[in-house]
Amino acid sequence: MSNLDNLRHSLAHLLATASLQYDPNLKLAIGPIIDNGFYYDIQFSKPFSNEMLPTLQQNMISLIKQNLSFERIETTANEAKKQFKDQPFKIELINELENAGATITLYKTGDFIDLCKGGHIENTKEIPIDAFELTHIAGAYWRGDEKNIMLTRVYGLAFETKEMLEEYKKQQAEAKLRDHRLLGEKLQLFMISDEVGKGLPLWLPNGAFIRKKLEDFIFDKELANGYQYVNTPILTHKRLYEKSGHLAHYKDDMYNPIEIEGEEYYLRPMNCPHHHQIFKHRPLSYRDLPIRLAEFGLVHRFERSGVLTGLIRSRGFTQNDSHIYCDKKDLQNEIINVLKLFKEVFDDVFQIKEYWFRLSLPDFSNTEKFGDIKNKKMWDEAATVTRNSLIAFAAPFVEVEGEASFYGPKIDIQMKNVAGKEDTIATIQIDFYSSKRSNLEFTNSKGEKEEPVIIHRAILGSFERFFALLTEHCAGAFPVWLSRVQVQILSVTEKQKEYVKNIADSLIKDGVRVETNVSDEMLGKKVKCAKEARVPYFLIIGEKEMTSQTVTVESHKHGKIGVMSLVDFINRIKKEVQNKTQ
Amino acid sequence: MSNLDNLRHSLAHLLATASLQYDPNLKLAIGPIIDNGFYYDIQFSKPFSNEMLPTLQQNMISLIKQNLSFERIETTANEAKKQFKDQPFKIELINELENAGATITLYKTGDFIDLCKGGHIENTKEIPIDAFELTHIAGAYWRGDEKNIMLTRVYGLAFETKEMLEEYKKQQAEAKLRDHRLLGEKLQLFMISDEVGKGLPLWLPNGAFIRKKLEDFIFDKELANGYQYVNTPILTHKRLYEKSGHLAHYKDDMYNPIEIEGEEYYLRPMNCPHHHQIFKHRPLSYRDLPIRLAEFGLVHRFERSGVLTGLIRSRGFTQNDSHIYCDKKDLQNEIINVLKLFKEVFDDVFQIKEYWFRLSLPDFSNTEKFGDIKNKKMWDEAATVTRNSLIAFAAPFVEVEGEASFYGPKIDIQMKNVAGKEDTIATIQIDFYSSKRSNLEFTNSKGEKEEPVIIHRAILGSFERFFALLTEHCAGAFPVWLSRVQVQILSVTEKQKEYVKNIADSLIKDGVRVETNVSDEMLGKKVKCAKEARVPYFLIIGEKEMTSQTVTVESHKHGKIGVMSLVDFINRIKKEVQNKTQ
Repeated sequence: MSNLDNLRHSLAHLLATASLQYDPNLKLAIGPIIDNGFYYDIQFSKPFSNEMLPTLQQNMISLIKQNLSFERIETTANEAKKQFKDQPFKIELINELENAGATITLYKTGDFIDLCKGGHIENTKEIPIDAFELTHIAGAYWRGDEKNIMLTRVYGLAFETKEMLEEYKKQQAEAKLRDHRLLGEKLQLFMISDEVGKGLPLWLPNGAFIRKKLEDFIFDKELANGYQYVNTPILTHKRLYEKSGHLAHYKDDMYNPIEIEGEEYYLRPMNCPHHHQIFKHRPLSYRDLPIRLAEFGLVHRFERSGVLTGLIRSRGFTQNDSHIYCDKKDLQNEIINVLKLFKEVFDDVFQIKEYWFRLSLPDFSNTEKFGDIKNKKMWDEAATVTRNSLIAFAAPFVEVEGEASFYGPKIDIQMKNVAGKEDTIATIQIDFYSSKRSNLEFTNSKGEKEEPVIIHRAILGSFERFFALLTEHCAGAFPVWLSRVQVQILSVTEKQKEYVKNIADSLIKDGVRVETNVSDEMLGKKVKCAKEARVPYFLIIGEKEMTSQTVTVESHKHGKIGVMSLVDFINRIKKEVQNKTQ
Repeated sequence: MSNLDNLRHSLAHLLATASLQYDPNLKLAIGPIIDNGFYYDIQFSKPFSNEMLPTLQQNMISLIKQNLSFERIETTANEAKKQFKDQPFKIELINELENAGATITLYKTGDFIDLCKGGHIENTKEIPIDAFELTHIAGAYWRGDEKNIMLTRVYGLAFETKEMLEEYKKQQAEAKLRDHRLLGEKLQLFMISDEVGKGLPLWLPNGAFIRKKLEDFIFDKELANGYQYVNTPILTHKRLYEKSGHLAHYKDDMYNPIEIEGEEYYLRPMNCPHHHQIFKHRPLSYRDLPIRLAEFGLVHRFERSGVLTGLIRSRGFTQNDSHIYCDKKDLQNEIINVLKLFKEVFDDVFQIKEYWFRLSLPDFSNTEKFGDIKNKKMWDEAATVTRNSLIAFAAPFVEVEGEASFYGPKIDIQMKNVAGKEDTIATIQIDFYSSKRSNLEFTNSKGEKEEPVIIHRAILGSFERFFALLTEHCAGAFPVWLSRVQVQILSVTEKQKEYVKNIADSLIKDGVRVETNVSDEMLGKKVKCAKEARVPYFLIIGEKEMTSQTVTVESHKHGKIGVMSLVDFINRIKKEVQNKTQ
């Protein structure tokens, strides 16, 4: 363990000690480190709230100032059980250690003794008292299992110096301002309704408009790249998922079936079986391949309510999905084309470049997911083409075992969100498995039946997740081509009302999306509103502009731009929309 | 009963008589008239197939030629039961008549006696032997209940003259060629898959493309008319439908719930409760109204498998839905705006004009659906505004009691499909009921809380149904702005391959959707394929065109158009796309 880890772990013990001073009858669970500090899970016997954290922190500082040392004690299970006779969670842990035949160690600091396998500083004097902070409490089930009792988790931040703590807090505050959930409410992009239910977001007009523009953009882009769009049902007979292997491999992520006229139908968790049905619908020859079926595919997957996160993790979402059916010899070429398309969309259009590639491979110790080793040849062949494609595309990548799909290896495109959590933003999955299962075939150039290989791919991932990512990436200031309102026109006084309307009409006629604000409010307030709404452009129209038949332009991104003719402004904005810049 | 009805009914008796000649042990169920003839439901004791119909028809003609009279016999239940002792279906019917205290009558023709309440000709000599025809058999449950035994239904057409029969058959044959199910397969627009399940169509690339263009069209149209688009989940907590009244009034049309973490979620049958949630999301004043929320809303409704019909009647479909929340004083104006929008879309853009308006009102004898008479005042008020809107719009309409929604009266826009069946193609529903139930309110100009009135409306109805209607309306020859392939370019010989590619590139650059056919096939075959695919335009490129740098243009709709420069052709097609003509 690093010194910082030892520091954090030692603070967890001090937190327990200080908590016992407040409530001697509390029961201690566990107190591990996390990537920004530490926590302790505690069952308090008295009321406990966030308001008590400053006092607790002061008491921890008092303990630190006593220059207490951390002493390691090796003991037997029986001795340990005596020591912790009033601590049922510790007893449970000791029993497990005993059953596993592990050495049992305790750590003593002042009067406090904890069951602990170690990783501590020598003495509390090593702890800088201004580089840690108790932040908040939350509920947490004992051992993370909702069938167990709910404990109070007390969180603390801890770093090596005060400056590092401050820097971290500053970063977090900035991240919070970019959080898509906060911006979602502030900019009226989407909402969550308790009445509708958990994990089922509703897109408000400002968000739904951008989503439609994203759909149109990717639809045109994919058509130009040889994709064909289809539209398939979200409800499907059980037999389709038996055949595809989803019921054997993916059932835990699916919702329970609905019975219709005595037969079971499932909400689909993936679109592939439907696309396979379309592939099979008519006889195909090698001349028809590759076939690239695309869909805005609505899927539903089970997520525990505890992990739901705005639009990033919901129970229903719409994938920018496609399945490419091709001859094995064209596979590498097709994978590279997908990688190129991905790069064009992310790098060139959205200016999102902070991602990395992960080659996700099987782990044959998980026989339930990946089958036994006799499939290894198929997996190796698929993995080799995938790896070679990444190499040919000159994309640096990491390889991770166990992250593959049940049907094949994947290229996952990974990114950290503003809160620092790693997410998969797009995926390219190679499938040598499903054609046989779903009886997919084409006639090859020798006139024989052959199974196509399949690429499952999503460029934008899901519209929900991509929109959340984009919102956080641009801090809610969407590019002009996506914005529902592209220009706000603000009058200085009510005398410009008529002129503002004329300008608005001209812009609308040229396809620009406009809102006017000719209310009695002071200009300063109108400007503030426009800025808060992150409108890409606002035009200020006063006496001067009316006389000279001009507009004064400000941009959210570039600030004050200056006075120009309306024609010049229209040309500027049309060019930006066309080029998808700003 | 009209004379034609009597004729058809009498033919049903003759069909039974002829059937008994073939199979004396058969059991007769019922033999009513239908709007193009008659049928008889029969349980045969011997094999029976369509091949036997000509013989049966000949036997019926022989009976007709015997100049048999129809004799009415009044009898008692006991006598009737003796008469039909070997006919269990008739016994069941007699028992019911007896319980209801009804008079029991029989009709005798030759040796055949049937239980029958009458409506016959006097003598078989009145039947023109060349104006009827047995057409086909089908399975039918006794009394239409799938829990009962399956019978054989023998269908016959019957008219007053041979000419009328022939005219009807000709119309039907034409209708069949326009049937969207037949064209759906022929033009690869959509498919039904047994593996996916009943009533769940899959849109193929040719159909899904047109659907996307329809969505884009109506999206732009509605934005320009002050609508705001939203996007809401298809799965929803039970409590939302308790509150909205759907579980009380609409449960039979909904699928069973899915349990998630101990709570029940339903597939939504309507989008309104979701839009109400968005309306409620922030405080609104009269200045914010009207609010027009629109969505391509995917809904699922239970339909028995027996009534499913391609895209016209499916289990899941996407509505072109909107809810308009307005002040009561603006209601008539808003209804008229919706009627105007409807007319613009149907009459002007799609050239569909053969519809009529139906004012659907409540029927207070159905207390389960419409509540008791104490709601009459609310219903009358809503009905009056709706009626006045239709009058002000100068739309002729019929009023029908009992067809209203459970929440208010409707303007249904009705049309006959090619098979002659009446369908609702669009609907405008007036709702004075839901605001109170769902706690919707705004602050009026006096600063008081007031409930908005709601218009539920769908212009295109559902995309599924509208697309089926449009397919049948244009017999699969879609207008150029909607077609996935707008132009096919056909080479006369392989020498024009390069020139064809150049022309295709020019067209694509100008945003025209192009396919080329430079195969070795004969030109005649290529032209035939282009015509069969209903491509709006095809260009023929031979030696002459190459030399003169021109194209020879044919249109699906207008036939041969002639030779022109590529630029002229591009201008022509761009103008048509822009104006949504051709």
